[in-house]
Amino acid sequence: MISPIPVTIRFLQQPTSQAWLTQALTNLNTVLLDHSHCERKAAGVALNLMFRYPSSTKLVRSLTAIAREELEHFEQVNQILEQRGISLRSLSPPPYGAGLNKQIRVQEPDRMLDSLLVSALIEARSHERLGLLGAHCPEPDLAKFYRGLMASEARHYGAYWVLATTYFEPSIVHQRLEELAAVESQLLSTLHPEPRIHS
Amino acid sequence: MISPIPVTIRFLQQPTSQAWLTQALTNLNTVLLDHSHCERKAAGVALNLMFRYPSSTKLVRSLTAIAREELEHFEQVNQILEQRGISLRSLSPPPYGAGLNKQIRVQEPDRMLDSLLVSALIEARSHERLGLLGAHCPEPDLAKFYRGLMASEARHYGAYWVLATTYFEPSIVHQRLEELAAVESQLLSTLHPEPRIHS
Repeated sequence: MISPIPVTIRFLQQPTSQAWLTQALTNLNTVLLDHSHCERKAAGVALNLMFRYPSSTKLVRSLTAIAREELEHFEQVNQILEQRGISLRSLSPPPYGAGLNKQIRVQEPDRMLDSLLVSALIEARSHERLGLLGAHCPEPDLAKFYRGLMASEARHYGAYWVLATTYFEPSIVHQRLEELAAVESQLLSTLHPEPRIHS
Repeated sequence: MISPIPVTIRFLQQPTSQAWLTQALTNLNTVLLDHSHCERKAAGVALNLMFRYPSSTKLVRSLTAIAREELEHFEQVNQILEQRGISLRSLSPPPYGAGLNKQIRVQEPDRMLDSLLVSALIEARSHERLGLLGAHCPEPDLAKFYRGLMASEARHYGAYWVLATTYFEPSIVHQRLEELAAVESQLLSTLHPEPRIHS
């Protein structure tokens, strides 16, 4: 039942399971609401990094563009929720985000490297999963919307990767990415009972 | 020397002093750098309010638009800084923001009302001061840029005001605005020695 889906996304060590896709497709409204929260959180993360590293010009420039795009998607998802008559409300987050954030080391410059790589991994997973929804969602308009977002998510994880290799030695980045990617796949190896983008 | 400038902006109890304008015009680069931080902070404040009140649809919709616009301005100011060869770097904030935030009561729903009104006042003051820079800046391109931003700032303070009156009784909003506006003018009554948008 939990057979893996043969989609290969750079950075990710394990593909998403069929179980997640089934769960998501049978709970599209909840996944949409969670997606709204994910876009807002992604904008918040980009903004927080800009606050933390205000003198890192390349980081500021790159993350401003990402934050703007996340907010645009947030607006788009919220419009779809409105069209479907779904009210905005908070949702309990799955353990994924907190689990990844726990991996971020507290001392600089490790903290910066880990923050960039954790964001890269989250964006990579979002790219994979929105792609799966784009390919398998039975509602054509919604499927098209997901396919439209995929390119941005791919650009975002690329941008976080480029920033990591701008500020750190490639060999250090590669090694740390391996470690974090292992944790990321591990966190998703058991399906979270509540349907979420990262359940 | 600190004669007031006869510009009247709704919400503000006291106009900006001539002393601020003189200080700003003789320190345009520092004011530009501070302006960049102000735009980023304004986007952050809008985003934080969305995080805090995720079910308040009108607030979320309105603040998403504001946050997107602040980030656009942030990008524009940063481009001007780059053209002028000014590196991004952190700046010590003037006491203005912390002084206003101290006025925000901790209990809901007071906290929401005060947060909206403090943002309205900051946007109103930014509108006034960018207008002064737009009128008096000796560099035509920069003056034009400031005038271009004025309309947005006016829309922003209007939007925060509308949100306050959406979620609270107009009489309560008016009374609290009076109190906060008095503090806001008081905070600016002594010119901060370092040139800032809100010195």
